[in-house]
Amino acid sequence: MTVDDTSSLSLDRIEPLAVLSPEVRADIARLCSWKRFGPHEQIIDRQSDTRDLLFLVRGSVRVVIYSVSGRELTLDDLKEGAFLGELSAIDGHPRSASVMSLTETVIASLSAEHFRRLLAQHSDFAMMVMKRLASMVRASTDRIIDLSTLGANNRVHAELLRQARLAGERDDGSAILKPIPVHGDMASRVSTTRETVARVLNDLARQGLVRRERDALVIVDLARLEEMVEEVRGE
Amino acid sequence: MTVDDTSSLSLDRIEPLAVLSPEVRADIARLCSWKRFGPHEQIIDRQSDTRDLLFLVRGSVRVVIYSVSGRELTLDDLKEGAFLGELSAIDGHPRSASVMSLTETVIASLSAEHFRRLLAQHSDFAMMVMKRLASMVRASTDRIIDLSTLGANNRVHAELLRQARLAGERDDGSAILKPIPVHGDMASRVSTTRETVARVLNDLARQGLVRRERDALVIVDLARLEEMVEEVRGE
Repeated sequence: MTVDDTSSLSLDRIEPLAVLSPEVRADIARLCSWKRFGPHEQIIDRQSDTRDLLFLVRGSVRVVIYSVSGRELTLDDLKEGAFLGELSAIDGHPRSASVMSLTETVIASLSAEHFRRLLAQHSDFAMMVMKRLASMVRASTDRIIDLSTLGANNRVHAELLRQARLAGERDDGSAILKPIPVHGDMASRVSTTRETVARVLNDLARQGLVRRERDALVIVDLARLEEMVEEVRGE
Repeated sequence: MTVDDTSSLSLDRIEPLAVLSPEVRADIARLCSWKRFGPHEQIIDRQSDTRDLLFLVRGSVRVVIYSVSGRELTLDDLKEGAFLGELSAIDGHPRSASVMSLTETVIASLSAEHFRRLLAQHSDFAMMVMKRLASMVRASTDRIIDLSTLGANNRVHAELLRQARLAGERDDGSAILKPIPVHGDMASRVSTTRETVARVLNDLARQGLVRRERDALVIVDLARLEEMVEEVRGE
């Protein structure tokens, strides 16, 4: 569905565009087509032949791949201010993954042609795009290492640690995950099953390392969880 | 060791530099420091704090990571004409992997500062670099999918298929891998053990799908191997 009131929307909060002037951003906004999605709608279909660059103006999305057996693999979760779809816009090849909205979402699409013109005209913007690509390669490499060297249990520990670090350590050495992480989401991020996630979390609860409250999961001892992960990862 | 005779060496065969004029390439060559390595020497140490971009002028190298347990993971093999080390040169972060020479190798190093200046001045070169980064992301995603959804046996089949496709199909539907792939190299590429690779190859030989000759491994029926891989990958 088309957005009725795009006049109030701008690309000013798209992070990689921050290196451009407000005037250039406004020009880009006029070149975009704007679309609103409800939660859990498909934004990019891996099978589609679009090559546009998409700006995530409002909401959050999940970049996923579905295996033959129907298993969902989460590659990344992106928040307001990100852009996506740059691989196909850059190399012209098919989409490497599907993208689903997690919340109500507003997307602005820029044609690959306009995107490439921007890259050619604004070297600082091109540098931002290269940095984002480099960080994608690094994140993928880390996941390849984890998948190649850690068992599923350890990968769940590592994912829990990642979320706890994002939430921040409190004075008493704990961290609070709120809302409680969905088992299926964690499983999809570390390539295992919901059942394994549930079992590992139960084991950790029995050891007193995590505690489930009504609306939050408390990591009781962040330092101990860090030790467990570092032992196997060798960080 | 320093290269004595660099006068005969140029960057003319470095593929991503092909978009630049011969004069610019010669300028870059003069800014580089040149080094020769014997086979199996370390070119980039993952722990090092260098940020240079490296041109692979002669020879071939392997991009690897060593796990805590000492297991070797091959991320990529690169041939003459490639460049490497671009992640750190772009984002200034530490090296993501180590690089070892496979053969006698000549490397030309360009400082990150000069590299970034080149990117800013030559948008077509920046585009080449973005395409290369995009292909690294795609290859990593494929490996994440394989690691997440295929068993070790199927990953060995898939690696065999990849090598057979590189070698090319012959009129009789076979493909010839020459020299015979080293089990440890295959294991390192698909994150399994040498023993698993040996067992899978033996199984395939028993089924008549591969045949070991004195100096080559013959994939007897490429189409059948393709079917086996497509069945599990869903390509």
